[in-house]
Amino acid sequence: MSRRWSERFNTRARNRLALSAIGEVMRLAEEEGAISLAAGEPCEELYPSRELTASLKRVIASDAQLWSYSNARRGNRDLAEWIARWMARDKLLPRWATHENVFITSGSQEGLHMLTEALLEPGDTVMVESPSYPEALLGFRKEGAHMAGIPLLEDGPDIEKMEMLLKNLNVKCFYTGATFQNPTGLSTSDEKKRQILNLAKQYDFLIIEDDPYRHLSYGNTPGETYLRISGDDQRVLYLGSFSKVIAPGLRCAWTVAPAQVMDVMHKLRIIGNLCLPELNQLAVLDYLEHVKMKKRLAEIRDLYRGHRDALVDALKRHAVPEGLEFNVPEGGFFLWGRINGVEDAEDFSRFAITEEKVAVVPGKGFFPGSGQGLDTIRMSFSKVTPEIAEEGASRLGRALRQYAAR
Amino acid sequence: MSRRWSERFNTRARNRLALSAIGEVMRLAEEEGAISLAAGEPCEELYPSRELTASLKRVIASDAQLWSYSNARRGNRDLAEWIARWMARDKLLPRWATHENVFITSGSQEGLHMLTEALLEPGDTVMVESPSYPEALLGFRKEGAHMAGIPLLEDGPDIEKMEMLLKNLNVKCFYTGATFQNPTGLSTSDEKKRQILNLAKQYDFLIIEDDPYRHLSYGNTPGETYLRISGDDQRVLYLGSFSKVIAPGLRCAWTVAPAQVMDVMHKLRIIGNLCLPELNQLAVLDYLEHVKMKKRLAEIRDLYRGHRDALVDALKRHAVPEGLEFNVPEGGFFLWGRINGVEDAEDFSRFAITEEKVAVVPGKGFFPGSGQGLDTIRMSFSKVTPEIAEEGASRLGRALRQYAAR
Repeated sequence: MSRRWSERFNTRARNRLALSAIGEVMRLAEEEGAISLAAGEPCEELYPSRELTASLKRVIASDAQLWSYSNARRGNRDLAEWIARWMARDKLLPRWATHENVFITSGSQEGLHMLTEALLEPGDTVMVESPSYPEALLGFRKEGAHMAGIPLLEDGPDIEKMEMLLKNLNVKCFYTGATFQNPTGLSTSDEKKRQILNLAKQYDFLIIEDDPYRHLSYGNTPGETYLRISGDDQRVLYLGSFSKVIAPGLRCAWTVAPAQVMDVMHKLRIIGNLCLPELNQLAVLDYLEHVKMKKRLAEIRDLYRGHRDALVDALKRHAVPEGLEFNVPEGGFFLWGRINGVEDAEDFSRFAITEEKVAVVPGKGFFPGSGQGLDTIRMSFSKVTPEIAEEGASRLGRALRQYAAR
Repeated sequence: MSRRWSERFNTRARNRLALSAIGEVMRLAEEEGAISLAAGEPCEELYPSRELTASLKRVIASDAQLWSYSNARRGNRDLAEWIARWMARDKLLPRWATHENVFITSGSQEGLHMLTEALLEPGDTVMVESPSYPEALLGFRKEGAHMAGIPLLEDGPDIEKMEMLLKNLNVKCFYTGATFQNPTGLSTSDEKKRQILNLAKQYDFLIIEDDPYRHLSYGNTPGETYLRISGDDQRVLYLGSFSKVIAPGLRCAWTVAPAQVMDVMHKLRIIGNLCLPELNQLAVLDYLEHVKMKKRLAEIRDLYRGHRDALVDALKRHAVPEGLEFNVPEGGFFLWGRINGVEDAEDFSRFAITEEKVAVVPGKGFFPGSGQGLDTIRMSFSKVTPEIAEEGASRLGRALRQYAAR
């Protein structure tokens, strides 16, 4: 007698996996041909196509071993060295971290997943910012972890709430996008990072610092990394990525971790996919060796600053009068908003996509608990040129008006 | 107070992860500059460097979206269609399987890992061939599964032992390399596949068919796939790979699975690494569209047949007189042997590498239980040219003699 698939799958596949809420909105938006304020992706205009093409050509023409399995289970060593030098120059690393603590991954999502697989036991508690990055929450859920949300204030997590929680719960780790966080664009002050690191020592939890937006600051230079501030304490696991500053398509990112964690990741790599393709890593390395990164990052910031300002301006004129409130972030990709008078932003989002052809992401998928942030939305300015911003904001304003008048 | 890392890791990282035994031998062999009969890799001479370079150049010059995230979570659709057509033409697919049942993965290792993550609960029993592929065993162990080994006979698993086991244990799935298996080179007869599929229905277990060596047959055409024979029963999960017939470095393989499993893999993909790089998949697809695969596979078989015959011949002259016994496989990459008079092939392997500079893989890591196959070794002929075969076999003979005389 044959069981149905639902009975064949394990607890994880049956109960702990969900689809990304963002992915569903993106799909619907594409189907409807909507203007998208939903995508958390770089602006295509900024992909260095010409330079990456040249890099790929050089790599292909070189005598690099592109076709065989790579013995470098932790990824290409030269690329790890480049990353370690770069981070050291920017004073992002503590003294103990060298290239031997850099593990190359297929997007920082792979690094986060490996850490999740190495650390979390079903029933463990992960402390997360509320709201937080949905694809991280999906991963924590996959391992059967409980998530405890800490409200995010202007200068970072609510420390009082955090302490209260720590007194009552055994917390395994704290996952944070401390710099221009997805979805709020908020950053944690260095002062608060120090306080949280003290709590981490006191209550012995780890910190996973997810830091893809660091170089996209449109005002002051961002603060220090938890990783650097933690010094010799070795309790911060750091996720860096080239997806936002070069291109996500080559799938190239990295994790900085103590030796013991590197060893576990090495074992998980073999079981998970044996090795990464050298081609992609070498293309990224060649690009990095040819670009003036400082100048390049300034260009990227200039373009995104323009996108942010244009969308902020257009929304103020078209959507704020209809009930939208939002922050103006200092960096990253996102505006985080609340819609006064809307009880279910998910329902509104569907309405806006299908009726007015404009897509925003409902905020509730960013919260660790259910029933939270029902009136919140995330709007991305990264891919939105000033012209599209004007039309998108105008449609959003109209959608809000129509939705209220239903 | 800070816990040590050993206390911070979860049960999985603490108790269920191990390094690959093969990897360790390979490392030592490289350090010692030994002739390697250890590597389970294609012969470099067979990498179609010129054609892959041309394919990469065409892909780079095309207007394909190489730099952005891919929305195709299941991998490139055109590549999935190519694979489905190819498999259908070779009569490897059952009626229900179309390109919508093809999930592209970063090596078949990623597909196997996803299946493992979707199916296995700690304490579940996985039936495996004894011996079997070590990196699969590592993955099953990672999820806390128990492994029950079924001895492998000339025509496949020992059915009587399998039935006895099934009467006593609740088995979740059977992992099999039914065609030119790693490490034995043995294949399961179609008759036996039918018997095992009947048992699978009766005892309701799934079958994971790992099939990377199918196209490397040096005698008759290999038998049917479990996947095909299973018909509408949808209980076979099939792993295919381009690693052995094109090149492993691009990391391109696939899983064929029913819709329900595809959905779970889709969710695991998002959590695991969001998406694959399009570049690698498109290069493989372009290569496939330009190569005459049938002719190409014949060339590959001719070369490997020559490698097999040369190593077999050299071993017969140099090592068999010193106590080596081995099979002559009809396909794949490997000779599987036993060393008469050696009690610990692992110890012998270290001796052979360091003293005589020749590397073979000790067999015990291929067995699901401990204390098994202590006198067995795996020898690979794939990368071993006839000249190297002569010298390697000669060194192996000398190592056996020296080892016996210690």
